[in-house]
Amino acid sequence: MAVVNSERLNRYSLAERKPLDPGGFTQPGRDDCIFLQGDPRMFESAEIGHKLSKGEYKAIEPKLRTDLLEAQVKLSQRGDFPVIILISGVRGAGKGETVNLLNEWMDPRHIRTIAFDTPTDEERARPPMWRYWRALPPKGKIGILFGSWYTAPIIDRVFKMSKKRDLAKSIERIRQFEAMLAQDGALIIKFWFHLSETAQKKRLKALQADPKTRWRVTDRDWSFFKHYRRFTDISGEVLEETSTAHAPWLVVEGSDPEYRAVMVGKVLLEAMNKRLAMPKGEAAVKIATPPLVEPVDHLHTLDTLNLKQSVPKEKYEAEIAKLQARIGKLTRHPKFAERSIICAFEGMDAAGKGGAIRRIAGSLDARLYNIIPVAAPTDEERAQSYLWRFWRHLPGKGRITIYDRSWYGRVLVERVEKFCSEADWMRAYGEINEFEEEIAEAGGIVTKFWLQISPEEQLRRFKEREKIKHKNFKITPEDWRNRDKWDAYQRAASDMIERTHTKHAPWVMVEANDKYFARVKILKELVERVEAQLEGRG
Amino acid sequence: MAVVNSERLNRYSLAERKPLDPGGFTQPGRDDCIFLQGDPRMFESAEIGHKLSKGEYKAIEPKLRTDLLEAQVKLSQRGDFPVIILISGVRGAGKGETVNLLNEWMDPRHIRTIAFDTPTDEERARPPMWRYWRALPPKGKIGILFGSWYTAPIIDRVFKMSKKRDLAKSIERIRQFEAMLAQDGALIIKFWFHLSETAQKKRLKALQADPKTRWRVTDRDWSFFKHYRRFTDISGEVLEETSTAHAPWLVVEGSDPEYRAVMVGKVLLEAMNKRLAMPKGEAAVKIATPPLVEPVDHLHTLDTLNLKQSVPKEKYEAEIAKLQARIGKLTRHPKFAERSIICAFEGMDAAGKGGAIRRIAGSLDARLYNIIPVAAPTDEERAQSYLWRFWRHLPGKGRITIYDRSWYGRVLVERVEKFCSEADWMRAYGEINEFEEEIAEAGGIVTKFWLQISPEEQLRRFKEREKIKHKNFKITPEDWRNRDKWDAYQRAASDMIERTHTKHAPWVMVEANDKYFARVKILKELVERVEAQLEGRG
Repeated sequence: MAVVNSERLNRYSLAERKPLDPGGFTQPGRDDCIFLQGDPRMFESAEIGHKLSKGEYKAIEPKLRTDLLEAQVKLSQRGDFPVIILISGVRGAGKGETVNLLNEWMDPRHIRTIAFDTPTDEERARPPMWRYWRALPPKGKIGILFGSWYTAPIIDRVFKMSKKRDLAKSIERIRQFEAMLAQDGALIIKFWFHLSETAQKKRLKALQADPKTRWRVTDRDWSFFKHYRRFTDISGEVLEETSTAHAPWLVVEGSDPEYRAVMVGKVLLEAMNKRLAMPKGEAAVKIATPPLVEPVDHLHTLDTLNLKQSVPKEKYEAEIAKLQARIGKLTRHPKFAERSIICAFEGMDAAGKGGAIRRIAGSLDARLYNIIPVAAPTDEERAQSYLWRFWRHLPGKGRITIYDRSWYGRVLVERVEKFCSEADWMRAYGEINEFEEEIAEAGGIVTKFWLQISPEEQLRRFKEREKIKHKNFKITPEDWRNRDKWDAYQRAASDMIERTHTKHAPWVMVEANDKYFARVKILKELVERVEAQLEGRG
Repeated sequence: MAVVNSERLNRYSLAERKPLDPGGFTQPGRDDCIFLQGDPRMFESAEIGHKLSKGEYKAIEPKLRTDLLEAQVKLSQRGDFPVIILISGVRGAGKGETVNLLNEWMDPRHIRTIAFDTPTDEERARPPMWRYWRALPPKGKIGILFGSWYTAPIIDRVFKMSKKRDLAKSIERIRQFEAMLAQDGALIIKFWFHLSETAQKKRLKALQADPKTRWRVTDRDWSFFKHYRRFTDISGEVLEETSTAHAPWLVVEGSDPEYRAVMVGKVLLEAMNKRLAMPKGEAAVKIATPPLVEPVDHLHTLDTLNLKQSVPKEKYEAEIAKLQARIGKLTRHPKFAERSIICAFEGMDAAGKGGAIRRIAGSLDARLYNIIPVAAPTDEERAQSYLWRFWRHLPGKGRITIYDRSWYGRVLVERVEKFCSEADWMRAYGEINEFEEEIAEAGGIVTKFWLQISPEEQLRRFKEREKIKHKNFKITPEDWRNRDKWDAYQRAASDMIERTHTKHAPWVMVEANDKYFARVKILKELVERVEAQLEGRG
């Protein structure tokens, strides 16, 4: 009996139950795939005693591994998307063995296997997702994640360390995260290794009985086993809610080593080949988002700013000195040790971002902050999702990162210059809001400044810069080109502010024709927001 | 009185006392610089009450900061070397203030200030130098290191947690490390902020008396102060031994803020300008190394290998299974939790590195190891010293990193293909030995394999690979070109083995014409060495 034929696999081709549809405009019929999706009895079909004889295994395995290796080579040659494999499920169901086998079947030099154990202190000082972002495989590589963003939400709920609504929130967050990865091109495959209660008990006892494997069974395993029912119920719910067309779950019965190995291998192979068959660039999942509608009166937020506001020099100097002292003091606030500050600066060229950043930096101990000037991504950064390069610089607790230009480049320069597709920047608004919310929930104080100047003021500054020798370097032909697209940038900035002005990360629009006025406003807004947050008022 | 004129600076132009000369072939007369070097009374000149009036400061400062900013812009435009500034010295001597000032004077967006406090757990799991390597600024940037590789050796000795010979060893290590950075092009400037005993006491008391600065003085500061004499003696010794032409110390009297600021600024400016005046590529310090002498009989280590050795398939399979089981067991040895394994594989193309690595990987839990296939460096890696990209992947405790090709590329492909200068690869032998020794001292078990095949066998394998579809990708025109340089590679490999076959990281030469023989030998050598190390025998 050839067990793993297309017929058997087809039994899993259930229609997707709850399509992920953040914008309400899902493209239908895109992923008619082989995975089990949203079946409420999802674990039942993984308790029926699936088996493959050693003989059958031996007949299937050589071709399977050759095919997998070949798919891996193609992936590496194309290098335009990563493969993210999640390995989850119950203890004793063969997760570790399967991971080892995948590394044996394919070329382990191009697989990155990462097991998530207790977070390190560098990880604990940052939002929970930080450790997963740093583990994501680059394009062209396979990442096997052993344990994942699913582990904590499920375990916390099983042991009642979180509420129902926390779990719901986690699920929503995961759906958005995976949708983002998939739309950036990642092939995501999630395996859930299952054992029936009886089978798991038997398995743990067998491991314990053998002196060679006794070390593998811990008290923690038995304490988990006690909650088998609750664990299965909650996992089932999570799997159902997170099995999407672009990031499906496959439940694998874990009792028979040959069966589970071939199942995993076949599923992986089919998924990779299907993805590899698509032409470059076209392969990414697309989820439509609501269109941007231009206000009928063409009045944008930025048009309402009064750029004539100014501050005289003497007043500026007095104010700035006071504000700098207040900022410096903030970082010594006892509660700051558990918080962090993230500042993002955006604005047209010559809007005064650098000057403002220097005034903030000047009020801080240099040991506490890090300034990230955002230019073209490095090749390591280009091999990841676009938010990756901002995640990597997130400050730990008690520290500050100032981004000179930021993740908003996606909806500004990348939109205007068409460096990414419309679908990509359209979905970025939601992704960015999510990113900032995760930072805020982990104690980060996100402050964002848009520095608005008039085109006349920009021209004046460009000319001034050309005169001053040591500022010369700042003017490039590109700066002049960008000026021609003034209106497009203004439109993009208006849309950005309207769509990402959130409670946890509000925008501060800064009237910046007068540098003194701009700097005072920026430092004042910064200090007041941070103070409010540290006092629990904001 | 214009205090910081060239005349006063010239008072520090003492000749270098103990030139760093690891190879005994120092090029003389290269660095006639402005720094105090190796003066046994080095701190005396920093206790004479240097001062600069506020008026003098105001006269000097504007030009100084414009010049510094300009130098920084040039550095950024050239982008061919990093500037590493070390800030050390006694408490209360204005280190923090000076760092903040440098960030204010120059563009803080291109300065990376890093303060070293307690190591994180990720840092503690690796050799002590790992945290400094990860903090090194890339080319074109300025890194200010607050605390540095000097801190622990000095403090440990002050509090008698280390012996005299430990300090001597640390000093030697630092000299080699800085020589390597300098030869890779880094501009290194080390500032030591000094206060006399009386001045430090006064300063600490003043800080404590003011409610605004009281928080800055800790019990630890006073406990350090109690050991003032010993601290000064030991620091003086360390400074004397590590003040080299390419990484000089400047002792700055710390009592007067204006004086110390201008001193640091001037020294930094002169050093940067001097370096910037040198043409690209020519600027790096060069320290000659002893020449490689070809054995007069032309007999090299590799010539002595008997490539006819082989193992029949059945024996191979039985042996490999046994060895794999032993390797797997090793990682569960209780002592392994405090150790790590580093494997480096080198050999001509098609020598069988990949196959051997897969046999090792196959015996390990995939969660424990990481395989690094070494190809062209990424742009982030190219912006650092060549060892940087190997440092970054070093395993933590209880883990394994396997390098498929390694840091030895420097003395193999980079030498043969002339990707680096002769001076660069010549000094690499010593640098590599040092690198491996540091790993070994931190508990890493370094194993290195050279897989030797005959040119005939290589040709046979190339042809075989071309036939097998899924191995096709492995043969590139480059592979054929490399074959033409067989003798040059053999010579390079022989030199490499002779010069880097050390006690803490011995080479295993593997007769690899027969794959089975090679794999058995590799696994056997690996398991025996790791066993010996874990049992405290190796």
